[in-house]
Order: sequence, then structure tokens, then C-alpha cells
Amino acid sequence: MVTRNAVILLSGGLDSATVLAIAKSQGYACYALSFNYGQKHNTELKAAKKIAATLGAVEHRIAEIDLRTFGGSALTDSHIDIPENRPQEGRIPVTYVPARNTIMLSYALAWAEVLQANDIFIGVNAVDYSGYPDCRPEYIAAFEQMARLATKAGVEGVPLQIQTPLLYLSKAEIIQYGIALNVDYSMTVTCYQADGEGRACGVCEACHLRKAGFIKAGVQDVTRYRQLQ
Amino acid sequence: MVTRNAVILLSGGLDSATVLAIAKSQGYACYALSFNYGQKHNTELKAAKKIAATLGAVEHRIAEIDLRTFGGSALTDSHIDIPENRPQEGRIPVTYVPARNTIMLSYALAWAEVLQANDIFIGVNAVDYSGYPDCRPEYIAAFEQMARLATKAGVEGVPLQIQTPLLYLSKAEIIQYGIALNVDYSMTVTCYQADGEGRACGVCEACHLRKAGFIKAGVQDVTRYRQLQ
Repeated sequence: MVTRNAVILLSGGLDSATVLAIAKSQGYACYALSFNYGQKHNTELKAAKKIAATLGAVEHRIAEIDLRTFGGSALTDSHIDIPENRPQEGRIPVTYVPARNTIMLSYALAWAEVLQANDIFIGVNAVDYSGYPDCRPEYIAAFEQMARLATKAGVEGVPLQIQTPLLYLSKAEIIQYGIALNVDYSMTVTCYQADGEGRACGVCEACHLRKAGFIKAGVQDVTRYRQLQ
Repeated sequence: MVTRNAVILLSGGLDSATVLAIAKSQGYACYALSFNYGQKHNTELKAAKKIAATLGAVEHRIAEIDLRTFGGSALTDSHIDIPENRPQEGRIPVTYVPARNTIMLSYALAWAEVLQANDIFIGVNAVDYSGYPDCRPEYIAAFEQMARLATKAGVEGVPLQIQTPLLYLSKAEIIQYGIALNVDYSMTVTCYQADGEGRACGVCEACHLRKAGFIKAGVQDVTRYRQLQ
């Protein structure tokens, strides 16, 4: 059997942990890639390490990138507060990090090229849509097209694929999929302002989406919160 | 008059210095962006600083990115030697850095979004083609398409442009263009293995292309070499 290598973008959150479990279940040798990008909620990196080890990634690397160089987001810019409520319908929220997925996918592309991996997995989702432009299906398709032209492999005819197994799943369906693959969601950190122990605030946009997912999935919410919800 | 902001990728080499001069001559407020990506020839960053100041960039930032995390190129991997001769026709040379232009353009995209700049300038060239897949016109077009879908501005309908004023110019034509704009090429460093003073080796692929350009342009080669050529 030929082992197929894949690069998995792993944030430490619920979605990307599920994606890693899915890639693994499909027989890929999984190379997990996380980023230290100056995020305020860097406890998710600790979570990512634990998840990569538990779910059997061959290797886990954390690339240092400093998106604070450019500012412009509540997640990385200390002058912008993280809002407690969900953003207005149709508006891009202040938690959007400029070009984040593009930068992360570009790094994944570099590693994929070195590993001779034809697959990059990312947990973007177009259903429980946060209003981030770089989570839309048409964006992913355009990135894939660009990536095929950008690389040696592309030039030599091996089609690189950006795999988005969560793209059309609801948060509840994602949770059900992960539970079926034995993902322990108590290890994952989704909250934008989790504390040092990885405990969630329960009130930010990300917490809202996650909580509603567990309720709809009919699954016990194993998230660790700072206070009783 | 409305000042238009533009992000200019500035390596410190001949091509990107010319691009900065061109953008400036077209009335853009130029934000120059360089990268410390673990390149062996980092004297080009010193050159970039000098060029940005001399050619009137509003601001010059150097983003730290570590492409050595992934290896795979003679330019960043200490286990691969830089070859002295030009690569074979049709082959991608070992000096190719995986996904380099994609990563750099992605950072430029992040900064452009924060600056509300609709233009990113890059000195890629399809004529004196080094065999890098990410210098081809179809690659640039695909990146532009992706970038428009990736960003707030794209979603709100402002068309981001990847400007490649050198794309169809020969090295000789680039030099003539720069001379007309008063670019002092003695400041630029093109050599893959320049010394600490920015003096070129005269034998690597980049030196070959540059030398031939000055000869064809009929312009005195002001490059500082380590030894008599």
C-alpha cells in the first residue's frame, strides 16, 4: 500500500480536530500544521499539540508567523476588543484576520511540496458561516486553482487538492462525524478568549456557534467553561 | 488628488527596485515589503532598506517568515548547495523555494487589506524565465482571482490587482526602464551568494542573467563583484 501524505491545518479547535480525524480515517499519513500568529487565544496551540498526538499525526509543526505586523483584527490587534455578541448579518466581523487562510494555506502548500503531498486539508465551513470571505467555497476553489499553477507538482501534472470535508456540514453534523471517529472534544479550544487552561468564555461568537452545535447534535457539551452556563 | 496606496514586494534585487521606481512614477504611495525568510543571501535585505529609503517608499517593513521550517531549496536549506551553472532547459532549478511567491503575495495581501490598497506590485518576469512555476503569467492571474475572493475588499466589490510591470520585459529592457527612472543599480543585490558587503559572485544563475542584461542593454554594469569579471 502506498502511503499518501497530507498536510492538515490544525488550529486546536473543534473543526480542525475533526478534519484531522477524517483524514486519518481515510488512510492519509497526516502532517499537522499549526501557527503561532500572535493570536490572543494561544491556548489553542497547546490544544493542537495534544490533538495531533492523540489522533496520530506523523508530525506536528508550529510555524511562527506574525500577523501583528499588519494589524487590523480584534484577534491580533491589542487596540481592538473582541465583541461579545454575534456580528450583524452580512457584515464581516472585526475578528476577521486579514488574509489569514490565504497565508496559512500558502505555508501548507510549501510543506506539501516538500513532502510530495497532493492533499491539504482545511476545516472551513460554509454553513455556520461567520462572514469570513476566505471560508467560502469559491475562495477555496480559486486557491486550489492557484496552488496547482504555483508548484513544481502542478507544473509536472500532479493535481494538488484542497480538501474541505466540513464545507457543507452544519456544526451539529461536524460534531456527530467527530464523535463517530472518537474525537474527544474536551481537548479542543474554540473560544476566542479562552483562559490559560483552555476554558471557554461561553459568550463570544465562537462559543455561541459551538454551544448551539452540541445542542442540535443532541450530544453532551464537553466544553470546559470558566463558569456555569 | 486621492493618494492610491500600493504594496510593493521588495527583495533588494534589480527587478523589485525597478518595480518600486515604476510604482512611484505612477503616483502610488508605496509601502515596501521585504522578507527575512532564512535566505543565505540576506545582504539583499540591507540593500532593500537602502532602496526603499532612496526611492521614496512611505514605509518599509520586513516580515519574518521561516521557510526553513520546511526545507527543500538550495536558497534556504543548508544541505543543498547553490549550483554555479544555469539549470537545464525546462527543469525547475534547486534554487526554487517552495511556494515562496505564494507566501509573499499572501502577506502583501494582508497588508494591502489593512492599508486599503487595491494594488500589489511584484517583479516577476516571464521572459528571462528561471523555470520557477510561480513566476508565470497564468500563476499571477490565478493568484489575483483568488485574492479578490479572499478579502473584505473583494467581497465588497473593489477589484484588487496584482501589478506585474516587468512580466513581458527582457532583463535588458528592465534595466533601460530603471535607468530612465534614475534607479541606481549599484545598490541592488541579485546574487544568490553575495558577501556581507553585497558584492556578487559573478558565477551563479542570477549573476549570469543580470550580467547578460547589462550587456544587451548597452549600459555599464555597475554591479559590485568580489573579483574582476
